[in-house]
Amino acid sequence: MAVNLRAPDPAALRTVDGVELGVARAGIRKPGRRDLLVVRVAPGAAVAGVFTKNRFCAAPVVVAKAHLRHPVRALVVNTGNANAGTGRDGLARARAVCGAVAAALGCRTQQVLPFSTGVIMEPLPVERITAGLPEAVVDLRADNWAAAAEAIMTTDTVAKACSRTLRLSGGDAVVTGIAKGSGMIRPDMATMLGFVATDANVSKVALQRITKAAAERSFNAITVDGDTSTNDAFVCLATGKGPVARSTKDLEALGGAITEVAQSLAQAIVRDGEGATKFVTVRVEGGRNASECRKVAYAIAHSPLVKTAFFAGDPNLGRILAAIGNAGIATLDTAKVSLYIDQVRVAVRGGRDPDYREAQGVAAMAKPEFTVRVALHRGNAAATVWTCDFSYDYVKINAEYRS
Amino acid sequence: MAVNLRAPDPAALRTVDGVELGVARAGIRKPGRRDLLVVRVAPGAAVAGVFTKNRFCAAPVVVAKAHLRHPVRALVVNTGNANAGTGRDGLARARAVCGAVAAALGCRTQQVLPFSTGVIMEPLPVERITAGLPEAVVDLRADNWAAAAEAIMTTDTVAKACSRTLRLSGGDAVVTGIAKGSGMIRPDMATMLGFVATDANVSKVALQRITKAAAERSFNAITVDGDTSTNDAFVCLATGKGPVARSTKDLEALGGAITEVAQSLAQAIVRDGEGATKFVTVRVEGGRNASECRKVAYAIAHSPLVKTAFFAGDPNLGRILAAIGNAGIATLDTAKVSLYIDQVRVAVRGGRDPDYREAQGVAAMAKPEFTVRVALHRGNAAATVWTCDFSYDYVKINAEYRS
Repeated sequence: MAVNLRAPDPAALRTVDGVELGVARAGIRKPGRRDLLVVRVAPGAAVAGVFTKNRFCAAPVVVAKAHLRHPVRALVVNTGNANAGTGRDGLARARAVCGAVAAALGCRTQQVLPFSTGVIMEPLPVERITAGLPEAVVDLRADNWAAAAEAIMTTDTVAKACSRTLRLSGGDAVVTGIAKGSGMIRPDMATMLGFVATDANVSKVALQRITKAAAERSFNAITVDGDTSTNDAFVCLATGKGPVARSTKDLEALGGAITEVAQSLAQAIVRDGEGATKFVTVRVEGGRNASECRKVAYAIAHSPLVKTAFFAGDPNLGRILAAIGNAGIATLDTAKVSLYIDQVRVAVRGGRDPDYREAQGVAAMAKPEFTVRVALHRGNAAATVWTCDFSYDYVKINAEYRS
Repeated sequence: MAVNLRAPDPAALRTVDGVELGVARAGIRKPGRRDLLVVRVAPGAAVAGVFTKNRFCAAPVVVAKAHLRHPVRALVVNTGNANAGTGRDGLARARAVCGAVAAALGCRTQQVLPFSTGVIMEPLPVERITAGLPEAVVDLRADNWAAAAEAIMTTDTVAKACSRTLRLSGGDAVVTGIAKGSGMIRPDMATMLGFVATDANVSKVALQRITKAAAERSFNAITVDGDTSTNDAFVCLATGKGPVARSTKDLEALGGAITEVAQSLAQAIVRDGEGATKFVTVRVEGGRNASECRKVAYAIAHSPLVKTAFFAGDPNLGRILAAIGNAGIATLDTAKVSLYIDQVRVAVRGGRDPDYREAQGVAAMAKPEFTVRVALHRGNAAATVWTCDFSYDYVKINAEYRS
């Protein structure tokens, strides 16, 4: 059911010098499927991360944030169990997994970042993960990105991975990433994980800035259902085995490539959104600042009425205008607002465009992908958010998930 | 499909001295149905109102707010057309309707408050309304509340009306109200209207305070889908034909009765919510202030994941806890949070209650009405919000509405 999304071609995923990936079937929740990923990172890599703001954040998030202060040598990701809502015991289990990985790879426990995704409020089966580690370690190799993308899936219907190369002043660099997620929270499946690696040589401070900016324009600019998972994490690592990125120009190029990869992965999550039949770009322009543009974009992208109209392919102006009016912009002059669906102007000066014919809107929304564009005409800022529709299958998936 | 909601018994709706209601079949959108209501108010009544905060507010809202500054002598309500998103022309049409009512009743245009509900972005058919007025005026009588409740319905499946009597120091007073709404926005049907009248003699200032407080605990404490209509209005009128309410005690009694009527009407809107199969009270206690309790309550009541779990009767702790964590309370200590479904404690100290058995939660949620109670354990404030579930029919109603 994913919208214009296919599994990545393993041959198109570039290796990143200094990063090796190994997967295993640890039987964490179900036997026989790949559910454990170990990423070995060469010494000297810079690592940066952005994590969930949900106050019920999961144990691995707490541990990963703390371990990020140390030189990172490995990531360990399990699916099938989110280790969320598990209190102090959950923290101990997350650290135990890090300890086992550290022992297997010959580094310190604090040099391992743990990530978990899957059912919440169940104790993490540390012993199964530990038992699966040797298989993952034996499997470690640089050209294993496609298997890694598959190993971190929970209810995703399609694996998500993406690669770019870019030219820096010192030579070509590569950026490769994987992500998982399907719905911002997949029921008990605590959700979004993204990992991006580059061989560029960049400082930790610069990488953190790039990571945060990339997250704002990718994982923080998508919504399936407006919920934020307890486990969301986006981690960038730069091995430094490739060309140096220090000049403003090189840092911009690197930031651009990382953002592009992150956007592609984030959009893949929306395309694979629960019950999604449409992939919709919501673009808000002419705001006083980016923040108010995002407010309006999210008001549209979160409105169940708008999302069911997307599902129906119904260019329902009233719902979209009402969502704009509800965005909480107290000084908004609605008499200046225009609204477009792709190239079709449906509303102008706050009301229906007299030249607009409903057949035009219906045709634009019949496509599996389209853009809703709002012009506020009160400034020069803009923001973009990606979302999907609300379908019968969204209700079905989320109502029947546990029964 | 409404949850435990029946049409009001006309005999149970008390008349309010100084208020007469008349309805007509004006054929505004569809022929043959009651779609026009005129309310005649005796001279000297105090009138107060609370209106939508949607920036795309409808023409009648703009006009009603302005006319409220004058001594109100009449209300005119049409269904079938919301006169929203209609710009300057919409304002002129709303005023034209007021003028026609004023002429028919012998008062000034500014003494008439207009209200419209129905399809948006279509010109209000003033001539049909004007043509229907004589029928409504002939019909004016005090015991017409049930017909009035029916005349303001759009896609409501059940008419909504309610009466209470209360004892004031000077004698018994009556409070009677009607409302319409089904989903906070019914697609193009711009939505929520509530009218409450009392014969008590109360100042306009006191009535405005009571109206605002009652709205906070009724119409502003419900959510079907998180959307706010362009036409929402709640108006209270006090004719002063009955006992005086001036002492603190009397004002409290009157405020209590008006709040009770408003709550009953507001809850009726949720019970009649689009596709609703469950009526859910979300109660958040132990917050530092009411505002943060409301934030948490709305985070739960708006989460599509929680609402689909309500539909499934699935006591899905993870979704509810994640919604609490997403409420934006930066200082929330999740390790103190407990969660109840009716009398069943499902989570304590931020995690699953060890004594909780899923069968208990399933049994509690199998009922058509239940309470989700959250204890934050960080203060003494509390807030309550009423909501319904998200069902297949919600998607069906909203996706198929216009096709």
